[in-house]
Amino acid sequence: MRYAAYRLGDKAMKILEERILRDGVVKPGGILKVDSFLNHQIDPQLCYEMAQEIHRLFEGERITKILTIEASGISVAVMTGLVFGVPAVFAKKAAGRNTSSEVYSSPVYSYTKQVTKDVIVAKEYLSAGDRVLIVDDFLAMGSALEGLCDIVAQAGAEAVGAAVVIEKAFQPGGDRLRAGGLRVEALARVRSMSDESLEFVKE
Amino acid sequence: MRYAAYRLGDKAMKILEERILRDGVVKPGGILKVDSFLNHQIDPQLCYEMAQEIHRLFEGERITKILTIEASGISVAVMTGLVFGVPAVFAKKAAGRNTSSEVYSSPVYSYTKQVTKDVIVAKEYLSAGDRVLIVDDFLAMGSALEGLCDIVAQAGAEAVGAAVVIEKAFQPGGDRLRAGGLRVEALARVRSMSDESLEFVKE
Repeated sequence: MRYAAYRLGDKAMKILEERILRDGVVKPGGILKVDSFLNHQIDPQLCYEMAQEIHRLFEGERITKILTIEASGISVAVMTGLVFGVPAVFAKKAAGRNTSSEVYSSPVYSYTKQVTKDVIVAKEYLSAGDRVLIVDDFLAMGSALEGLCDIVAQAGAEAVGAAVVIEKAFQPGGDRLRAGGLRVEALARVRSMSDESLEFVKE
Repeated sequence: MRYAAYRLGDKAMKILEERILRDGVVKPGGILKVDSFLNHQIDPQLCYEMAQEIHRLFEGERITKILTIEASGISVAVMTGLVFGVPAVFAKKAAGRNTSSEVYSSPVYSYTKQVTKDVIVAKEYLSAGDRVLIVDDFLAMGSALEGLCDIVAQAGAEAVGAAVVIEKAFQPGGDRLRAGGLRVEALARVRSMSDESLEFVKE
């Protein structure tokens, strides 16, 4: 086990928490690197199990579309779409500002890369009648989810909720989005982390 | 039906050919746009069926890893990894040249964007013992597949073959790669296309 001290949460996805503890690496600047199973190399079976858990959380919500953002969100989103039986749309990162009349567009600031990029979705893939589940790999400051919510609103569709793989609960994005009325579910919520310890939220 | 003239091939994946005929759009510059089910919005069920066909083609090859390139290859690669029961690695597009000692790197020229970018894979995710199946959405000039083959070779791993969703058989990439000894399977092979007609290869 990598961490001298750790604590599991009460979430259903113990398998995910244990994987983060085993394979995650805390990097300087508050980065939790999970490249071995989510962000560079993907464990498809784990992805599928996460999609099943997301389905358990949101079934009955009559979801019509999964929305994510390239590139790391795609694997979980497409598995989630498979389980729900609905299409998955991935927002693209545009170079600079995009003002095409054919796309919905929203600026997203990346704290990791310290740059703002517009994310865009072609208008034909989101409609007023859609009930959208937003899926992403990480939730920290919440900028990506806010941009995706903005795009859903521009389409006149409804954001039923957001499902993220890992929430850094010590950063304000999740609480701010929940305070704004969005249902946000995280499969693993990290309460604190350092080189030596990593604790999940116990609820 | 969008095309006044069309012809299906003999491939097993009629469902894919029919989807291309129904939803594909031929754009100026020889672009076949399939954003409605593969490159922007993804049909997860179709993705899963393509993965099953790829498994049928390559089962018995003792594949240990799926390798693709971000972003559009990820959805098919992760489904293929699920069916094979092996991890899927996606090569990342680096800004400019990358000479880090921690990654394998190869330059890939995009004919669509007319720019060369290095694609990189962290060394820890490809090993000498790996039997790698390369997966991608499109094959036209073959630059992306060549870059991925180069990375597999750098790792001392074996490229067992490549599976692509759509091959533009009127462009030279596929034939050149096959002449070089790589087994290349395309789920749909477009023989010719224009605004009015689209024909698949009959073999």
